[in-house]
Amino acid sequence: MDQAINLSKKLATFDQHWSPRTVTTFNGHDVMVVKVLGEFKWHSHPDTDDFFLVLKGRVDIELRDRTVTLGPGEMFIVPKGVEHRPVAREEAHLLLIEPTGTPNTGDAATAAKRQLI
Amino acid sequence: MDQAINLSKKLATFDQHWSPRTVTTFNGHDVMVVKVLGEFKWHSHPDTDDFFLVLKGRVDIELRDRTVTLGPGEMFIVPKGVEHRPVAREEAHLLLIEPTGTPNTGDAATAAKRQLI
Repeated sequence: MDQAINLSKKLATFDQHWSPRTVTTFNGHDVMVVKVLGEFKWHSHPDTDDFFLVLKGRVDIELRDRTVTLGPGEMFIVPKGVEHRPVAREEAHLLLIEPTGTPNTGDAATAAKRQLI
Repeated sequence: MDQAINLSKKLATFDQHWSPRTVTTFNGHDVMVVKVLGEFKWHSHPDTDDFFLVLKGRVDIELRDRTVTLGPGEMFIVPKGVEHRPVAREEAHLLLIEPTGTPNTGDAATAAKRQLI
């Protein structure tokens, strides 16, 4: 964590979808990169906002009443407690920020394990 | 804050250097874009890490013992309390994240006023 973090190079180290990798930490949060494709599950995070920044591709953040579509260089914050479902019709690469330990599904039982790369 | 935030479009709305603009908030933090050119001042933030992600251009994050050079898609976290000086030899555009109210110079007396765009 004492040098420049190249997000593309970090993304090139893995292929799995919906499996965020932590690239650094910041004020008690994990800064993560993730590759996504297809539909995630509907979920919410009761205690944290959810930070999405698209690095490559396109992703729909489905909310119960509308859909926010994000392309490269676009971001969106899902406020805490708000149900959402990310859907990527093509592979997309995202930067995510969540408090360290937050389950990506909103539920520790089904969450992807956090991995530092 | 209820729609996609296009960072390039936000950056196109102003020209001033070293004058961060808040584009949204996240878990008590301001998410900001900033245009930088030239040398900033040496400073540190006693209570927060400092998040830098380069969107365009190149910036040197000078530390007292070394320099971390960042290009597009590269990021760096300056740990809290660590003295640093950003230097941009060409105009660069950055994404910054700091707790809401953090003075950008480390000193409220000299800090740029936070502006929401």
